[in-house]
Amino acid sequence: MDELLERLAEIADLERMAMLLAWDQEVVMPPAGAEARGELRATVGRLSHERFIDERVGELLESAAPRDELEADVVRVARRDFDKARRVPGELVAEMARAGVAARGVWLVARQTNDFALFAPHLERNIELRRRYSACFPEAEHPYDPLLDDFEPGMSTAELREALERLRDGLVPLVAAAPDVDASLLRAGPFPEAGQRALVTTVLRAVGVDDEQWRLDDAAHPFEATIATNDVRLTTRYDEAELDSLYSSLHEFGHGLYEHQVDPALARTSLGTGASSAWHESQSRLWENMVGRSPGFWRWCFPHARAALPERFAGATWQEVQRAANAVRPSLIRVSADEVTYGLHIVLRFELELALIEGSLAVADLPAAWNERTQAYLGLDVPDDVRGVMQDVHWAEGIFGYFPTYALGNVIAGQVWARLNADLPDLDERFAAGEFAPLREWLAEHVHRFGRRLLPTDLLQRVTGEGLDPTPYLDYLEAKVQTSAQLMS
Amino acid sequence: MDELLERLAEIADLERMAMLLAWDQEVVMPPAGAEARGELRATVGRLSHERFIDERVGELLESAAPRDELEADVVRVARRDFDKARRVPGELVAEMARAGVAARGVWLVARQTNDFALFAPHLERNIELRRRYSACFPEAEHPYDPLLDDFEPGMSTAELREALERLRDGLVPLVAAAPDVDASLLRAGPFPEAGQRALVTTVLRAVGVDDEQWRLDDAAHPFEATIATNDVRLTTRYDEAELDSLYSSLHEFGHGLYEHQVDPALARTSLGTGASSAWHESQSRLWENMVGRSPGFWRWCFPHARAALPERFAGATWQEVQRAANAVRPSLIRVSADEVTYGLHIVLRFELELALIEGSLAVADLPAAWNERTQAYLGLDVPDDVRGVMQDVHWAEGIFGYFPTYALGNVIAGQVWARLNADLPDLDERFAAGEFAPLREWLAEHVHRFGRRLLPTDLLQRVTGEGLDPTPYLDYLEAKVQTSAQLMS
Repeated sequence: MDELLERLAEIADLERMAMLLAWDQEVVMPPAGAEARGELRATVGRLSHERFIDERVGELLESAAPRDELEADVVRVARRDFDKARRVPGELVAEMARAGVAARGVWLVARQTNDFALFAPHLERNIELRRRYSACFPEAEHPYDPLLDDFEPGMSTAELREALERLRDGLVPLVAAAPDVDASLLRAGPFPEAGQRALVTTVLRAVGVDDEQWRLDDAAHPFEATIATNDVRLTTRYDEAELDSLYSSLHEFGHGLYEHQVDPALARTSLGTGASSAWHESQSRLWENMVGRSPGFWRWCFPHARAALPERFAGATWQEVQRAANAVRPSLIRVSADEVTYGLHIVLRFELELALIEGSLAVADLPAAWNERTQAYLGLDVPDDVRGVMQDVHWAEGIFGYFPTYALGNVIAGQVWARLNADLPDLDERFAAGEFAPLREWLAEHVHRFGRRLLPTDLLQRVTGEGLDPTPYLDYLEAKVQTSAQLMS
Repeated sequence: MDELLERLAEIADLERMAMLLAWDQEVVMPPAGAEARGELRATVGRLSHERFIDERVGELLESAAPRDELEADVVRVARRDFDKARRVPGELVAEMARAGVAARGVWLVARQTNDFALFAPHLERNIELRRRYSACFPEAEHPYDPLLDDFEPGMSTAELREALERLRDGLVPLVAAAPDVDASLLRAGPFPEAGQRALVTTVLRAVGVDDEQWRLDDAAHPFEATIATNDVRLTTRYDEAELDSLYSSLHEFGHGLYEHQVDPALARTSLGTGASSAWHESQSRLWENMVGRSPGFWRWCFPHARAALPERFAGATWQEVQRAANAVRPSLIRVSADEVTYGLHIVLRFELELALIEGSLAVADLPAAWNERTQAYLGLDVPDDVRGVMQDVHWAEGIFGYFPTYALGNVIAGQVWARLNADLPDLDERFAAGEFAPLREWLAEHVHRFGRRLLPTDLLQRVTGEGLDPTPYLDYLEAKVQTSAQLMS
């Protein structure tokens, strides 16, 4: 057992190293270091994989005799990870990585000339390789299951499909009913960079960031990197035309807080991180949207925003800013979508990638299918593939099974939020007083501390007493849309 | 052969990782990350060691069939490293590491109360472990040889002792003869931090630093970290009372330039770094002292220094600053010693650590021996052990065999500098014009590109046509002292 724990600790360390290599590359590395960095990242990734799928780990897992409940969880999760990793040939893993790098390069070129045909064969190759990956798990009910399972352990395609259909059917009429609110208080500058930095710092300090255990840096594409429970690194970017830095910081804070509040006893095991991609996204979206667009948050935040950015906020009220923060307007690009339309962007991607993996949709027919659903769900015409099917990097990199976790994250956040408000009915008043500790502590106690000890659906059952259910999230959005509509009339 | 190269590439990558972990810890890591960082560093160090001393590497080295001269060098050096690493039991390596950490902790406490007796048993333990380390190499002529060989491959204690005796015998009269020059233009502020930063940036850009391939950051104890040939990271610190940031930056630049100019073909082999500790130090000292205290450098630099730091330099001339940069004054603390007395600080440490390893000096008698030699070499009384035998961390960490490389570095720099000035007689004029490329290129061609392909003494032979010889360095210092004396009279 001790040897097993040591080996798993080594692998956990290598994964942290990989994280540090990525953070360093995005945030501080001199540009010319990129080539050597690719080698370093490949070496750490290969070592971590090789050391895990080693025969010896199999023997240790076979004969492991856990001495307490924590060790039992470690062994159970490690066995699951090990079985999955062992069944995929190293050749196929390497091939998927190579094809993804190649396809990503072509995707970048194809975007410049809006040339989907150039990209199509590479996308086909990525899909074929994922189908081969799925075939390593012949017991799967659906070829999408093994892909989804990499991000949502234990979740079935059938369960996911049902949840996202219900989400879609709730969102389409909601989007159609949403009034067209003016969002320019947050989406039309000037927002001078220095003022944004001051505001982001104030907000992050209030929600729980300190210099002892956290960093905040600039990055072209904001992300969060946990190097250790007590070394959590957020990034954001500053665009003077909009106040996205505030929401992206809260989003990354949600990811970081999850990792920060995992039980320290799980450090250096396979359990010392979030339960799944959707659970992680639930936490980032909870802070970004449920907290950051709430009335209480803006009652507290507005004086700070006005002090930091008088150019934009001098003549406004907190109510106006909060309304702007909840504006709904269908748009073509997922990453800049509002909270309500966002889910439809995801459902569309999920439905299409499911069809691609099933083989019921040919790559040649993908752009038309994309454009048709964009019209059906969002009421928009897609003018070109750059603003359509080629807008995201995921498929180019060969990532299938990940998109739905964005929507699942929102669904889970809705269920957690409902539970939270039942437990802490004065939450919005607390936010208005700048008090975020009750929320942090509730999340630590009910969600974060468990790390990967529970499967995603078991965690959901434990937190909410329910299975996956989009209703609370739809109710939450509907209440917002109704409030907006009442204010308009 | 390919498998061997791959394995060595992996180990080279892990060593770069270790460097990045150290850089990150000193420069950007949130303080609370320290504990987890210790684990990460231990894991990477252990993996790199284990992967190298593996049976399989032995087999590959045994059967290796190099296909060209470079591969032959890789195999030769890797065999040497492997044989050395295999002969030391893992137990002893771990014990040395543990004892070093413990002794360092006690040393920190002992310094606070000037209590050498508290530190002594830990120092004894470190020495005993180093003697056991040496005993792993029974063929060594002297127990100090295997320790020295870790830093200066192939150098014997006898050869080193002779060179440092000659250095000492040349330096003692030189120090006695040196006039007492006023150094306050560089050693008494005000040097506002912003002005220092501007000056350091200007100087580093001129000598060859760019943002594409280099970084400069702040650190409590300046150091250089090479993450890759094209990712070189310098650090310095800013003290408003003196202009040490300039010299420490040039020093670290010398280390960084060496690594930056190693032949890219050696990357990811065991040869892709400097030849030895002394060779590395020769490059840092060459830029810090031979360049940075030269007349040409100050003719060029002075207008920039005056513009950046008018508070200090408005009424001065470049000649006055250059004289201050070459002031000689015996002092107690090695790290703040001037160029001429520095060698005596090192010789003293070398002689004492040699006696400790030989067993001819007992730890109990060490402070008295230290104080006696400080009087003999520098003419100074040592008021307490904190400013005496307990001033450096090296022995506390169990590092023996490293101190002499500081002096050897200066000796080698003297020999290289003589060769350089014979090849490029207008070097000082070039510096005066802000032209440092000829020096950089000469060093790349004659020293840097070889990496570890040649043993230190073979490299010296190749560069200068000579063996180790302190004469050029002593001549260089004597000329400086004479110039100072003439200007005083």
